[in-house]
Amino acid sequence: MSIIEPKVLKGFRDSLPAEETEKKRLFAILEKTFTSFGFAPIDTPVLEYTQVLLGKGGGETDKQIYRFTDNGDRDVSMRFDLTVPFARFVSANLDKLPLPFKRYHIAKVWRGENTQKGRYREFYQCDFDIVGVDSAAADLEILTMICQSLKNIGVDGFKIHLASRQVFNRFLAKLGIQDKLTDILRLVDKLAKIGEEEVAKQLAEIAGSNAAEKILSYIKMEESFDKTLEKITALAGGEADDTARLCALKKALDDNGLADCFVLDPSITRGLDYYTGIVYETFLDSAPEFGSVCSGGRYNNLASLYTKTQLPGVGASIGIDRLISALEALGKKNDNQALCDTIIFNTDEPLLGHYTKIALMLRKEGISCDLYPEAKKLNKQFGYVEKKHIPVGIIIGTDEYESGTITVKDLRTRENFERLPLEKGIEKIKSLLNHEA
Amino acid sequence: MSIIEPKVLKGFRDSLPAEETEKKRLFAILEKTFTSFGFAPIDTPVLEYTQVLLGKGGGETDKQIYRFTDNGDRDVSMRFDLTVPFARFVSANLDKLPLPFKRYHIAKVWRGENTQKGRYREFYQCDFDIVGVDSAAADLEILTMICQSLKNIGVDGFKIHLASRQVFNRFLAKLGIQDKLTDILRLVDKLAKIGEEEVAKQLAEIAGSNAAEKILSYIKMEESFDKTLEKITALAGGEADDTARLCALKKALDDNGLADCFVLDPSITRGLDYYTGIVYETFLDSAPEFGSVCSGGRYNNLASLYTKTQLPGVGASIGIDRLISALEALGKKNDNQALCDTIIFNTDEPLLGHYTKIALMLRKEGISCDLYPEAKKLNKQFGYVEKKHIPVGIIIGTDEYESGTITVKDLRTRENFERLPLEKGIEKIKSLLNHEA
Repeated sequence: MSIIEPKVLKGFRDSLPAEETEKKRLFAILEKTFTSFGFAPIDTPVLEYTQVLLGKGGGETDKQIYRFTDNGDRDVSMRFDLTVPFARFVSANLDKLPLPFKRYHIAKVWRGENTQKGRYREFYQCDFDIVGVDSAAADLEILTMICQSLKNIGVDGFKIHLASRQVFNRFLAKLGIQDKLTDILRLVDKLAKIGEEEVAKQLAEIAGSNAAEKILSYIKMEESFDKTLEKITALAGGEADDTARLCALKKALDDNGLADCFVLDPSITRGLDYYTGIVYETFLDSAPEFGSVCSGGRYNNLASLYTKTQLPGVGASIGIDRLISALEALGKKNDNQALCDTIIFNTDEPLLGHYTKIALMLRKEGISCDLYPEAKKLNKQFGYVEKKHIPVGIIIGTDEYESGTITVKDLRTRENFERLPLEKGIEKIKSLLNHEA
Repeated sequence: MSIIEPKVLKGFRDSLPAEETEKKRLFAILEKTFTSFGFAPIDTPVLEYTQVLLGKGGGETDKQIYRFTDNGDRDVSMRFDLTVPFARFVSANLDKLPLPFKRYHIAKVWRGENTQKGRYREFYQCDFDIVGVDSAAADLEILTMICQSLKNIGVDGFKIHLASRQVFNRFLAKLGIQDKLTDILRLVDKLAKIGEEEVAKQLAEIAGSNAAEKILSYIKMEESFDKTLEKITALAGGEADDTARLCALKKALDDNGLADCFVLDPSITRGLDYYTGIVYETFLDSAPEFGSVCSGGRYNNLASLYTKTQLPGVGASIGIDRLISALEALGKKNDNQALCDTIIFNTDEPLLGHYTKIALMLRKEGISCDLYPEAKKLNKQFGYVEKKHIPVGIIIGTDEYESGTITVKDLRTRENFERLPLEKGIEKIKSLLNHEA
């Protein structure tokens, strides 16, 4: 019989045990953080009506979407982000949800993107939002949760670059060029990419050289949060609700010793029309080249496509793949992690029931235990151990069985602790495993 | 602007917070059990080449599959189970995997099934296998893990119905009707559905009335595992490797006090050609009407479609949706579970920084804490609490703030514990949360 090549589609990939274990470890930390803040998980279908996902449509997304006609002749698509399904979800379940609604969603999305850029067509998104309220408390909760999430993952040095779209709008209105908002946003967003000179040139073309100069002055960070706030307040025409919000946030962050994680950076615009309040991007001190690992902002109407209920909200999205790449680059990813704490070597087939008994005993003690599934030469079993990075082995031959003991082997040093009574053996295993930590 | 109806596709559904939390709780218990046995997680792409998924094709699956042509003109499909992608995965990554390979995979699959039967088109599968070995130890490990998984979930009364396809094959060979294997398997599999009389009638049509009688005798359970084993051994022509395997398994299960969870039930066939050794289905004592919640068996070649390497294996699949329905029916599903331990009521906007400080303190203590994201009337905040089933509230007004205290409220009894010093307050919260457990 001819063989089918077991290949995956371009832009897709398998997740091997070490990688999948690491991803699950990361997700578990994030989920624990999110639920500790009172955020609840939701899930939505991978397939939706295309009309629901694309809405008015047009734009880049349409070309990248996995769209087809199903067996019931429906025009369907695979979700390409978690924001649109969330808007649909909230609209459909409004009466069942606690409002304000705090949710998180970690799930795969699909885009037929150009893989030449090193991008994948199947990837995870991790979104969290508070909808149904426009308040400093909600803004603060999201910002605090970003800090806590990154800290819990073990990322210490990072800066959240914060800006306010409202203040920026007010500033443009004062210059009389509010109608050019979208073009200006797109241009400012490219600052890091194309450089100040080019931005200045193109801004001048759009808004005149006088306005361009003022915009460049506006988006420049001063030496401190307060100084920058002072400058943009003045440039936008004085204090208002939007600057008061920034003040309140800064004070609360100060109160909580979190101010060091933040800078006020008026060059952050998040390019999208969508945002209406604070916006933010997050950069790692030791790996800024990976770009923002967590971005988001405040919007004044999540779900206008699906409901007449006004739903203001604030949220953020952690770039899981980017974060994993950055952690890897920072040496924070553990590729040689043990896929199991211990293994019972299988040397004596008739002792199978006894092996299982010892294994169940260890598992009850919270020690994961693999049992080599066949009585084979120890050499072969050692090869298995190496691929799974198992640190501790247990040998039970006839001697051990008859004397009610186990021989414990530190597989990293090859040191043996022979014929220990069961209780002592378990103690030894625990101490060997603790040494590892 | 006109509104788009926020509807989901037929056969698909949203997962609301309580439901999704319960599902995640279940998955976490299962994953902890699997990893405690040394099983590692993997993941595969949702989309694959259609040829890879369907192989030789033909049959029911083809009609149910979500299949389409992607933007690169590839014939692609969404996975309809986790077995085929696993076979492809093992073949593609054989050199990178520890062999024997123990993996688990919990993920969504898609089938355009008839929704009239109450089936969904998007659902979870939960599979675990040991491939690369044909041994009693591997069989036992899977059977033990099924027991441990169900026990850890809190399901106590269940029976795993075990049979051997090898012994059955030997029995049919002895009757000289091995060529009718597939038809007979299909028929026996329908026993519970169409009744003994109808099975007898159809068996007689296929194999003659003499053989039919013998088959009916073979598939009948006797009063004990051993008696049934004795009978089928005799009917199959005496002892052989296959019956020795059943003996070894029974002995090891006895040694571990697990024999009560098993019956030898020769009527279990698992209808598929695929299986070649032991096969099993699992029924809940108090909810047999839900059918098997965990089924599987031994196969002698997982991946013959993709590789010439022979890969014998043994595995099982937990029917997640069925199990959740059964748990619900047994009252083991907690619909009113708290989505958070505590909430800080927001009564005083300027105290925001202080609220955040107290919240972070509680979260550090392992107590999840929601902060109502807006200073609103307490009535409104109570409504929110009810929807999230939060058991403990914290009130901090100016009094409490100035005296460095908190007022703790048991939201189930409405009892207040006023102005407790912070440390005492946290103790009180912990004791209130423990009372709940």
